[in-house]
Amino acid sequence: MDDQVVITCALTGGMTVPTQSEAIPITVEQIVEEGVRAAEAGASVLHVHVREEATGRPVADLELFDRVLTELKRNTDAVLQPTTGGGRGMTVEERGSVLTFRPEMATLNAGSINFGLFPVAGRDLPFEPWERDYLEGSRDYIFKNTFADVTYLAQLMEESGTRPEIEVYDVGQLYNLQYLVKEGVLRPPFNLQFVLGVLGANAAEPDQLLHMLRTAQRLFGEDAFTWSAAGVGYPGEFRMAGLSLMLGGNVRVGLEDNLRVERRKAAGSNAELVEKAVRLADLYDRRPATPGEARRVLGLKGAEGVAF
Amino acid sequence: MDDQVVITCALTGGMTVPTQSEAIPITVEQIVEEGVRAAEAGASVLHVHVREEATGRPVADLELFDRVLTELKRNTDAVLQPTTGGGRGMTVEERGSVLTFRPEMATLNAGSINFGLFPVAGRDLPFEPWERDYLEGSRDYIFKNTFADVTYLAQLMEESGTRPEIEVYDVGQLYNLQYLVKEGVLRPPFNLQFVLGVLGANAAEPDQLLHMLRTAQRLFGEDAFTWSAAGVGYPGEFRMAGLSLMLGGNVRVGLEDNLRVERRKAAGSNAELVEKAVRLADLYDRRPATPGEARRVLGLKGAEGVAF
Amino acid sequence: MDDQVVITCALTGGMTVPTQSEAIPITVEQIVEEGVRAAEAGASVLHVHVREEATGRPVADLELFDRVLTELKRNTDAVLQPTTGGGRGMTVEERGSVLTFRPEMATLNAGSINFGLFPVAGRDLPFEPWERDYLEGSRDYIFKNTFADVTYLAQLMEESGTRPEIEVYDVGQLYNLQYLVKEGVLRPPFNLQFVLGVLGANAAEPDQLLHMLRTAQRLFGEDAFTWSAAGVGYPGEFRMAGLSLMLGGNVRVGLEDNLRVERRKAAGSNAELVEKAVRLADLYDRRPATPGEARRVLGLKGAEGVAF
Amino acid sequence: MDDQVVITCALTGGMTVPTQSEAIPITVEQIVEEGVRAAEAGASVLHVHVREEATGRPVADLELFDRVLTELKRNTDAVLQPTTGGGRGMTVEERGSVLTFRPEMATLNAGSINFGLFPVAGRDLPFEPWERDYLEGSRDYIFKNTFADVTYLAQLMEESGTRPEIEVYDVGQLYNLQYLVKEGVLRPPFNLQFVLGVLGANAAEPDQLLHMLRTAQRLFGEDAFTWSAAGVGYPGEFRMAGLSLMLGGNVRVGLEDNLRVERRKAAGSNAELVEKAVRLADLYDRRPATPGEARRVLGLKGAEGVAF
Repeated sequence: MDDQVVITCALTGGMTVPTQSEAIPITVEQIVEEGVRAAEAGASVLHVHVREEATGRPVADLELFDRVLTELKRNTDAVLQPTTGGGRGMTVEERGSVLTFRPEMATLNAGSINFGLFPVAGRDLPFEPWERDYLEGSRDYIFKNTFADVTYLAQLMEESGTRPEIEVYDVGQLYNLQYLVKEGVLRPPFNLQFVLGVLGANAAEPDQLLHMLRTAQRLFGEDAFTWSAAGVGYPGEFRMAGLSLMLGGNVRVGLEDNLRVERRKAAGSNAELVEKAVRLADLYDRRPATPGEARRVLGLKGAEGVAF
Repeated sequence: MDDQVVITCALTGGMTVPTQSEAIPITVEQIVEEGVRAAEAGASVLHVHVREEATGRPVADLELFDRVLTELKRNTDAVLQPTTGGGRGMTVEERGSVLTFRPEMATLNAGSINFGLFPVAGRDLPFEPWERDYLEGSRDYIFKNTFADVTYLAQLMEESGTRPEIEVYDVGQLYNLQYLVKEGVLRPPFNLQFVLGVLGANAAEPDQLLHMLRTAQRLFGEDAFTWSAAGVGYPGEFRMAGLSLMLGGNVRVGLEDNLRVERRKAAGSNAELVEKAVRLADLYDRRPATPGEARRVLGLKGAEGVAF
Repeated sequence: MDDQVVITCALTGGMTVPTQSEAIPITVEQIVEEGVRAAEAGASVLHVHVREEATGRPVADLELFDRVLTELKRNTDAVLQPTTGGGRGMTVEERGSVLTFRPEMATLNAGSINFGLFPVAGRDLPFEPWERDYLEGSRDYIFKNTFADVTYLAQLMEESGTRPEIEVYDVGQLYNLQYLVKEGVLRPPFNLQFVLGVLGANAAEPDQLLHMLRTAQRLFGEDAFTWSAAGVGYPGEFRMAGLSLMLGGNVRVGLEDNLRVERRKAAGSNAELVEKAVRLADLYDRRPATPGEARRVLGLKGAEGVAF
Repeated sequence: MDDQVVITCALTGGMTVPTQSEAIPITVEQIVEEGVRAAEAGASVLHVHVREEATGRPVADLELFDRVLTELKRNTDAVLQPTTGGGRGMTVEERGSVLTFRPEMATLNAGSINFGLFPVAGRDLPFEPWERDYLEGSRDYIFKNTFADVTYLAQLMEESGTRPEIEVYDVGQLYNLQYLVKEGVLRPPFNLQFVLGVLGANAAEPDQLLHMLRTAQRLFGEDAFTWSAAGVGYPGEFRMAGLSLMLGGNVRVGLEDNLRVERRKAAGSNAELVEKAVRLADLYDRRPATPGEARRVLGLKGAEGVAF
């Protein structure tokens, strides 16, 4: 097993609203600052969403992406990985538009699921009306990634020299990939991200990660992919991280996925979550990969190949 | 382990087109005749969809449902279980309208998935234009069952005294159920149907059925549900049946799910598939439950409680 | 998946006593007759133990082995696979002595376990005193297969051109094999027999067979071994057979492992058990391999290479 | 999930020889000192073997046990748990003799396995002749725990008010327990210790611990036992600890099982291993149980009930 571990930090995401935590970075400046600090703490990949600066609402605004990616590139050597998952209400074309920046890597979601944020709306927090709508509305929301969508985005990535990080949320999505390989839409080796703990998809339990990993290895072979685990929620984030570290996988943490650093303590920053992942990694004899090592492991074209 | 097994026959479904097999029943008369013969062969539950009689296109036409249910009731004592899953392009209200007939049981789908029929369009068959559209269009299709949809249908069933057969297509849907139980939308004991083998969801492999069953038992307790397995495709249908029979579960077969009775032999009728399930059951010391036994096992109100 | 299935029939074994069933063959003549009929019914491998002719006590008597093997060879083309497992109280040298006959194949047990026959002694049957002793004595019995024993027998097999059928009774024994491969004692490709259902070892449950199979595939690779399943007891025998058939494995049945053909019906002969396995195989589109096909699949030297 | 974790420290064991590590405590004084420091570091249970003071050879000497237990009791409040597993070459009566001290808890091994220490003999270390013999001799060694042995020891424990910590090394041993419960030899609730990583038994891999845990829960029910995991070797010890911590289980570490604290750093003491377990526990929001809390969780009679 390699002693390096690629730590991805998912800085802000599109599935929380600002009132849930003051630590969530909103403005370009905040996202960039959080990204730089997360990289200093040990993250070699930064997973990037953007938010409307005035409100914090998740958007797929190209200008905001441009500013965040450009500023991050100026200030850190970490791999910059924008989402193509977006947030509620975006079309697949909007979600894919970020590929015009020809990033080294971008996420590609492997299937459709319910994505339920609405339980959060039940908490006793002073939500803005749009926030409450955003959360409550997820009761009737599907995170849409049809075979047509995945094919469309995969082809855009192929054209832009962008390597997909394939996000799988449930077992069946591995069989989706198997089909897409057969059709020639995707080709191993892959980089898989097991995203577990979303209400609507598989849970952030050791049984589930292990089952999905072993299923993937059975379908594609052990050497056909690198993999990482992202546990959504607490303690899911660090359970998935711990299991991944002992099994030789990579790790994703960050405020997109989880807002707590201890059971009874809110995370003050993305860097704090990365630091905890690093402490955990250390107990398993693994040290954070540098951005250069991450690029080699993940098969990326390098920062010089991007269009921002 | 009980020596009875409830065999459900899914007579026609909404995910195939007539050109795939002459055996698929289309008209009311055909569906009724197939249902009666399947019941004679050992099925104690008939899972019912309807199709436009002139073309065979899957629809949610209440008048057709009325005729099929009424005629089936007149000719067989088997439990009649209409779908609320429908077919491509139906609204959830259309799908739920069948509950006005207050059936003893109806299917309730536990989450959203891609549902890919399009590989069938690649076969060398003389498809009608609408058929090709129907199949090809599934490339961009989601079988939509949001939390709002499931809640809506579950409440309709509650009101109509209809017991849900909860269809789960992937692991995460079990966690959906866990949430819906916590919210009070659903209450154990359940009747679960593990539907495996849809392109877009989990596969009809022994590993997957076993993993889903054990996950469900962990979440809800062994005594909290009866269960059945429906393998989509061949040989998935009889693999899932065989595993279910040895584990004490129930079985669903039928032309909705699978069109072959042997690897190289098309099924001539639903009854033929039921007969094969009965032969398999016999090797595991299990005999087909009668409709009366099925009603007891599944906790149904009885045929006298329906509105058709 | 191959449509052939190698059916092994374990004719008499060393872990039952005659009073348990009149069908158990005891004398040379009976064993040979049972073997011939089992082969006619579809078995292409006959697994052979011998018993003292006057009493039925399991022994490792070379003269009896000589007579059984010679007579079987004269009357059937099936592969003849003597045990090196023996019965209670035999030394490893006694157990290995059968290799002087240079058989095409012999069993090789991959580790030590308790092997409890004593629950049988509690049944209301007119046991002979030696039988009761034999059964009861297993309370303090270990089926001894130390690393030294396995190495000794593996080397004898290597020298006699005999291919081992490696019997694994629990998960840890797969890791024993991994070690023996590293030490050079064994070399893939293997032929594995998962023997499940012995009191003292792993159980004849689908979860256990699947877990052991997937562990073996993870350790050695999918193409590193052929495999078969032998369920001990009823209904274990046919559960393991059914699961193996759907997963592409081979099957072992026979009176050594199980004395019932239905839940409430004793097996009248080995052939009856083979016939049931053939019926089950047929439902999974698999037909019994011929002895010639079995020799190819299992990599055997052929009947002309034996010394009897 | 409880936020306490019972950490057991296995101080010296019977399966290593002194030349493997200077840290292994040998004399009574050393064992006591190591025990006291381990308890201070967070262990609430001390698992005790003794060794011949002049040589370090594992023995079952009652006088040594008396001295170690008496001195430990004087210096720490931790639960003292002597082994009934012993070391190579001991009879079951010798192994059980320690129960005359009526300890609060003692280990009870649930089945027979090969127990291979011989790979260690291949290392380039200046072994004493007896050490080399001890290690090499394990090539033909079985750790004997027949049904008769387990029954004998369980009854001694019952008579001495000693609660068994049932050590399970492979899946089949869980079915042994199921049988012993049926026979009335053992009664839930149990305290299970999953000991994984012995050459001859199941491996210290997440898949294996999870599979054994879920099998045990299926057989006995989730509330029928407390459980702990002991990984033998490095990194097995901390992999099993990490998985157990996230699943709500307890943890065993110590020089009996593992001699390294990092991949490339030998452990200097038992306390060092306990400290690492505590750091890992802290990352999962769990804190070391006090001896009093451990007694409550494990259902022990208390230190005042022992005969030393």
